[in-house]
Amino acid sequence: MATVVNFDESRRENAVPALDRMSALVAEDLVKVNQLIVDKMDSPVPLIPQLAGHLIASGGKRLRPMLTLAAAKLCDYQGDRQINLAACVEFIHTATLLHDDVVDASDLRRGQDSANAVWGNQASVLVGDFLFSRAFQLMVKDGSLNVLRILSNASATIAEGEVLQLLTVNDTETSESAYFDVIRAKTATLFAAAAEIGAVVAERPEVEQEALDNYGMNFGVAFQIVDDVLDYSAEQEKLGKTIGDDFREGKITLPVILSWLRGDDTERTFWRRTLADLEQEEGDLEHAIGIMNSHHALSDSIARARHYGAMAKDALGIFPDQPIKQSMTGLVDFCIDRAY
Amino acid sequence: MATVVNFDESRRENAVPALDRMSALVAEDLVKVNQLIVDKMDSPVPLIPQLAGHLIASGGKRLRPMLTLAAAKLCDYQGDRQINLAACVEFIHTATLLHDDVVDASDLRRGQDSANAVWGNQASVLVGDFLFSRAFQLMVKDGSLNVLRILSNASATIAEGEVLQLLTVNDTETSESAYFDVIRAKTATLFAAAAEIGAVVAERPEVEQEALDNYGMNFGVAFQIVDDVLDYSAEQEKLGKTIGDDFREGKITLPVILSWLRGDDTERTFWRRTLADLEQEEGDLEHAIGIMNSHHALSDSIARARHYGAMAKDALGIFPDQPIKQSMTGLVDFCIDRAY
Repeated sequence: MATVVNFDESRRENAVPALDRMSALVAEDLVKVNQLIVDKMDSPVPLIPQLAGHLIASGGKRLRPMLTLAAAKLCDYQGDRQINLAACVEFIHTATLLHDDVVDASDLRRGQDSANAVWGNQASVLVGDFLFSRAFQLMVKDGSLNVLRILSNASATIAEGEVLQLLTVNDTETSESAYFDVIRAKTATLFAAAAEIGAVVAERPEVEQEALDNYGMNFGVAFQIVDDVLDYSAEQEKLGKTIGDDFREGKITLPVILSWLRGDDTERTFWRRTLADLEQEEGDLEHAIGIMNSHHALSDSIARARHYGAMAKDALGIFPDQPIKQSMTGLVDFCIDRAY
Repeated sequence: MATVVNFDESRRENAVPALDRMSALVAEDLVKVNQLIVDKMDSPVPLIPQLAGHLIASGGKRLRPMLTLAAAKLCDYQGDRQINLAACVEFIHTATLLHDDVVDASDLRRGQDSANAVWGNQASVLVGDFLFSRAFQLMVKDGSLNVLRILSNASATIAEGEVLQLLTVNDTETSESAYFDVIRAKTATLFAAAAEIGAVVAERPEVEQEALDNYGMNFGVAFQIVDDVLDYSAEQEKLGKTIGDDFREGKITLPVILSWLRGDDTERTFWRRTLADLEQEEGDLEHAIGIMNSHHALSDSIARARHYGAMAKDALGIFPDQPIKQSMTGLVDFCIDRAY
């Protein structure tokens, strides 16, 4: 099977170290954020640090808190409030992950295995709630109502996006625009808030706060599209990663939407059977990827991601060129170039 | 079977209208709170007001937001911030209820029916998250970091309490002190925060804020004990209410703890089978109530509740006598006197 998208090798070489480059530039802050995360997820109830630690230690790219650190650095902020707030961002993200893991009663009845098999639904929900509350405690400690407004708005939007996604699951007629509504809300909003906060602590003019907000929002959209493409990537499978999770759950992501819109009746019958009715057989995932490739649905999804990636990078145009800015634009390319 | 606790009829007559008396005293505010709740649970995602409305409309005593309204009135507060904050308190409470409804994978495997059968686990979690975020948005709008601190601390404590409760489920050796840790955290903390906020908006001296905090905390403990007793109340069953939910889930509440501590080996074997192993047969609930009554575990639990109720009422001693204060002490008695 062909790779999803063909890139020339040189681009790949350049793209790979972008995350490391950003990590290196904010290394000192990142160590402090990691320490604060460990400290603040502590609780007299041992299950809380156990479960939270399991997730926070393992997940580990720290992409969202790094956006806060990088944005603060880009704004030449000299204080240390970004440490506290980057930890908040990671806590909100982790709470979301824990709550995403909660399995629906109907899923279980279908006999699927839950991602939270070790701890159970209830523990995932409650520890998520704890981390979410802890994030707000940290924000209150920071004391900025502006930051509290940005992150409480983001949290409400994320929850709305997750509910919206729930409503599009198994709905093969989901429109591309509904898909974008979902990913903007559930993913991109936190990227945007994380970046914007960097400008807020630095007390930069509104135009710079907005630029970082736009950077994060467009980056987040690109990131989620790529994430959704990777779930159908034969290359990922070759690397030993699990693919097809979205397919098995009947999640309607951009590659499916484009394939549906460009497909014929036979194909639509296939999508209805596999994604709406969840009647899946051996070989269905491979067949789905075949249909997607025949319609260029995966490569065109990446093209959509590049569009948002380009907007993200341009949003930083008002900031002077410097290593941290290069790492922020480089990170966008890196995240899109994951999609081999 | 005898009633759980015997009260003289006159006390019953006095106690019943206490909730109505408080409602009447804060009636104007309560209408505004209810309107704000309806307005603020709205969302472009229709499932959110549907699900939240289902719960908020049906649950309906509004006990916790009424504490905020009553406390503000007791402190002679003349503004209208209590409306907004009472709605926050109700949103946090409703979010907790939604998250409590989430059924564990293991519960489902035992074939139990879920309280959230209509909507599914995922919707309960996500709409709960939305209400929780919405509460913080409302607090940010209010703009008091002090209130934000009180309610974010309360939220973290509630989550810790819920996790702690999860760890004591099915553990028949749970101590009375562990039980009190759980109910203080999961229930009483929000009562305390709700009442304290009334003094905070009125900018009353620390000593009055603390008095209302103590009132709420002790009231909340008494309330939860009574709630746990009612789940074994034959009188409740006669009134057509479901009893035995805690028993079926193996929740270790005060009547069980007292019965365990006062029981013999045969009884402990019974508790282990029914509550730790959840191997329950026809007639087990009635047998459990019989054991409890033989040890006065239900009436002595109510005696414990009266102790906390007395402390709650005394905490208001620093406030001058007036109708709103009488309704607040009366409400404590009313909630305890539910336990017929």
